[in-house]
Amino acid sequence: MKTQVVIVGAGPSGLLLGQLLGRAGIDTVILERSTREHVLGRIRAGVLERGTVRLLEEAGCADRLHREGQIHHGVELAFDNERLRLDLAALTGGAHVTVYGQTEVTRDLMEARAAAGWPTVFEAADVRIEDAATTRPRVSFEQEGVRHEVACDFVAACDGYHGVGRRSVPAEALRTFERVYPFGWLGLLADAPPAAEELVYANHPRGFALASMRSATRSRYYVQVSLDERVEDWSDDRFYRELRARLPADLAAAVTPSPSIEKSIAPLRSFVAEPMRFGRLFLAGDAAHIVPPTGAKGLNLALGDVHYLTEGFVAHYREGSDAELDAYSARALARVWKAERFSWWMTSVLHRFPDMDAFAQRMQRAEFDHLTAVPSAAVNLAENYVGLPF
Amino acid sequence: MKTQVVIVGAGPSGLLLGQLLGRAGIDTVILERSTREHVLGRIRAGVLERGTVRLLEEAGCADRLHREGQIHHGVELAFDNERLRLDLAALTGGAHVTVYGQTEVTRDLMEARAAAGWPTVFEAADVRIEDAATTRPRVSFEQEGVRHEVACDFVAACDGYHGVGRRSVPAEALRTFERVYPFGWLGLLADAPPAAEELVYANHPRGFALASMRSATRSRYYVQVSLDERVEDWSDDRFYRELRARLPADLAAAVTPSPSIEKSIAPLRSFVAEPMRFGRLFLAGDAAHIVPPTGAKGLNLALGDVHYLTEGFVAHYREGSDAELDAYSARALARVWKAERFSWWMTSVLHRFPDMDAFAQRMQRAEFDHLTAVPSAAVNLAENYVGLPF
Repeated sequence: MKTQVVIVGAGPSGLLLGQLLGRAGIDTVILERSTREHVLGRIRAGVLERGTVRLLEEAGCADRLHREGQIHHGVELAFDNERLRLDLAALTGGAHVTVYGQTEVTRDLMEARAAAGWPTVFEAADVRIEDAATTRPRVSFEQEGVRHEVACDFVAACDGYHGVGRRSVPAEALRTFERVYPFGWLGLLADAPPAAEELVYANHPRGFALASMRSATRSRYYVQVSLDERVEDWSDDRFYRELRARLPADLAAAVTPSPSIEKSIAPLRSFVAEPMRFGRLFLAGDAAHIVPPTGAKGLNLALGDVHYLTEGFVAHYREGSDAELDAYSARALARVWKAERFSWWMTSVLHRFPDMDAFAQRMQRAEFDHLTAVPSAAVNLAENYVGLPF
Repeated sequence: MKTQVVIVGAGPSGLLLGQLLGRAGIDTVILERSTREHVLGRIRAGVLERGTVRLLEEAGCADRLHREGQIHHGVELAFDNERLRLDLAALTGGAHVTVYGQTEVTRDLMEARAAAGWPTVFEAADVRIEDAATTRPRVSFEQEGVRHEVACDFVAACDGYHGVGRRSVPAEALRTFERVYPFGWLGLLADAPPAAEELVYANHPRGFALASMRSATRSRYYVQVSLDERVEDWSDDRFYRELRARLPADLAAAVTPSPSIEKSIAPLRSFVAEPMRFGRLFLAGDAAHIVPPTGAKGLNLALGDVHYLTEGFVAHYREGSDAELDAYSARALARVWKAERFSWWMTSVLHRFPDMDAFAQRMQRAEFDHLTAVPSAAVNLAENYVGLPF
C-alpha cells in the first residue's frame, strides 16, 4: 500500500485531518487500533470553540452540528452559593461556544469519510512507524495475523497520549513537561434535562463540581474526587447527593437525578511534549499534549493542531513549500502553551487541593471577586474560553 | 490628655490620617514609638498609584510630589532577554503611576503636621490601648519614665505589622491568613542615574531582579536571594554582577555600578488579619495586612485604608452616622484582598521558587507570552498596577 499521508488514529483529530486533506486532494490512509464502535463509544468533551466550528465547516461536517448543537452565549462560575455569569457574547464582542458532544463530532467525521470512500483501517494492531527521520517513512500494522505496510510521504500521529506516535520519537529528541493533579473527576451522564441552560463551574468547600450537558435532554455532571476513590463506591444516589451539596442551592434544586448511562473517574493532568515533529512524523492533539478538562480545551486544542498541520501539508503538495510544515511545531506550541496556562489556571482556581492553606483558599475567592469586580479580568477569561484566534 | 482620635504610628498612614482628619476639624494625637529621624530614615517603596496621589492632594501634601515625582506611563516585564513594555496610559485610558519615595511622602506629611501644630508624640514607649471594646477607649504610653494617658473616642492603629495595634485585639476576635515566600529581596540604593527610565521586573533563571529608582539620580535595584543569605556577604561589586546577570543585556549594560548608600535583605510575605476593627480600635495598613513588594502595593494599600477610615470618622463627627465606620472593615478588606491577589500573582509569576519543576517554569513563561499576545491580559495587569478604584 502507498499513500501521501498516513494518519494514525481515527479520533476527531485524525478524522478531521483526513477530511481537510482529502478535500484538498491529498491522499490519506487512517489506521485505527480499535473498532469503529469503540471509538464512537468514548464519552468525552462537548464544548466547541468558534474556531473549532469553523474547521468543521471547512471539512463539510458541520450540518448536524448547526442543527443540533446548542449555542451558549454565557458560562457561569460559582463560589459557595454565589453565582457569576460571564456574558461571553458581550465580553468578547459576539463570540460564543457550541455544546455538541465529541462523540457526535467523531460520528459526523466518520460518516463523511466513509461517504467519500477514503480508506480507514480499523483494528489495525501493533502499528509501527519506521524511517520517520528519512524522506520515505513507512507505517506497518497487523490485521488478522498478517502484517501490512503503507509507504508514505508523511505520518501524522493523532493517536492520543497512549498511542504509538509519540513513542516512535527517540526519547532524546523530546522534552516533556507534566503536572499531575491530586484529584480526579467523577463524571455521570444521564438522559435528563440539565439543571441549567449554561455550564456552571463551582468551587465549593467540599470540592469542585461542574453542571454541564450534551444536549437539551442529556445532562453531564462532574464532582472532584480524590484519586483513591473507586467508581463502584459511587451509586447514582450518592453522586447526586454530593453534586447537590456542592452546587448553589437554586441550581442543586434543579438537578433531575436520573439513572446514569455512564459513570467514570478521570484523573487530571497537564502534559506537553516538545517539539511536535520528528523528521516526517508529526504529533497532533493528545499525542503531544494533555490539558485537564477544566475549561474544555482538549478537543479544541487538538483540532487547532490539525488546522496548522493541514496548512503545512497543503503548502507542501500545492506550492512545493515546506515553510509551513517547518513552522508547524512552533505555531502549534505557541497556542498549546496558552491553553495549558488557561486550563491549569482554571483548575487551580476551582478545585480544592489537599494541601491548601487558608491563604490559598482566599486567593481562590479573590480570583472570583476579581472576575466579578474588574471587567478586564472577565474579558480575559471569556476570550480564553471561547478560544484564542489561530 | 484628651482627644477625638488617637493615632498610633507616625508612618505615612498615621500621618495621612492625621492630616485628613485635621483638615476636617477632627482632633488627633499621634503616638510614635521611634524618633522623627528614625521614621524618616526607613527606606521603603516608591511607586504611587493615582488614587494615592489624589489622597495626598486632599491632604494638601502633594506640592513637592508634583514638582519632584516622576510620572511613569509604562512599566516593563522581562523574561530572560526578552522585554515587554506595558503602556499603562494606553492600556488604562490615561492612567499612570508616580515614582516618589515613601520617605519623601512621610517627610511632606510630617512637615505639614508640624506646620499645623497638631500634636505628635515621638519616642512614646510601651504604648497600651485599653478599653477598646467600650465607648471610652484610652491609650497610655511612657516617656522619660513617666506614664501618660490619652482619653479618646477612637483609636486608629497605623503602627505596622509589629505594632501594638493588632496585638491589642483579642486573638479569638481575629482571623489571620499568611503566606511566607521561600526567598527575600536584597535591595541596593545608590546615587546614580537608573538603568532605565521605567521600572523593569525581570524573571531570569538565576532569579528575579528589579531595576527601579527613586528619582532621576537615585537608583534602586533588587535581586531575589535565598533566605539564608546575609547582607554582609554581598559586596556592591557582587551585587552589581548578579543584577547584571539577571537583567536583559541592553539593560544590564546601562547599570551604573555606584557605591551603595543602603543595602538590606527583606523577606517576602503575604498577611491579612480580619476584621480590621475591634470595638473602637481600627487597624490600617501594615497593622492589618502585608503584601510582598512585587507590584508595589504596600504603601498604596495602606493609604487606601486611610481613605475609608477618614470617611468613617468624618461621617461620625459631621453627620452623627456610624454606617461608614461600621462598613470600614468590609470596604477596606474588599480592596485589600484584590491587592493581595495581585501581589501574590506578580510574585508567583516573576520569582524562581526552589521547588519549581519544568512545567511550573513553563507556566511562568506562558504568563509572559499571554501578556504579550492577549491584550485583555495586559489591560488587566495595567489596571491592577495603576490601582483599582476606591
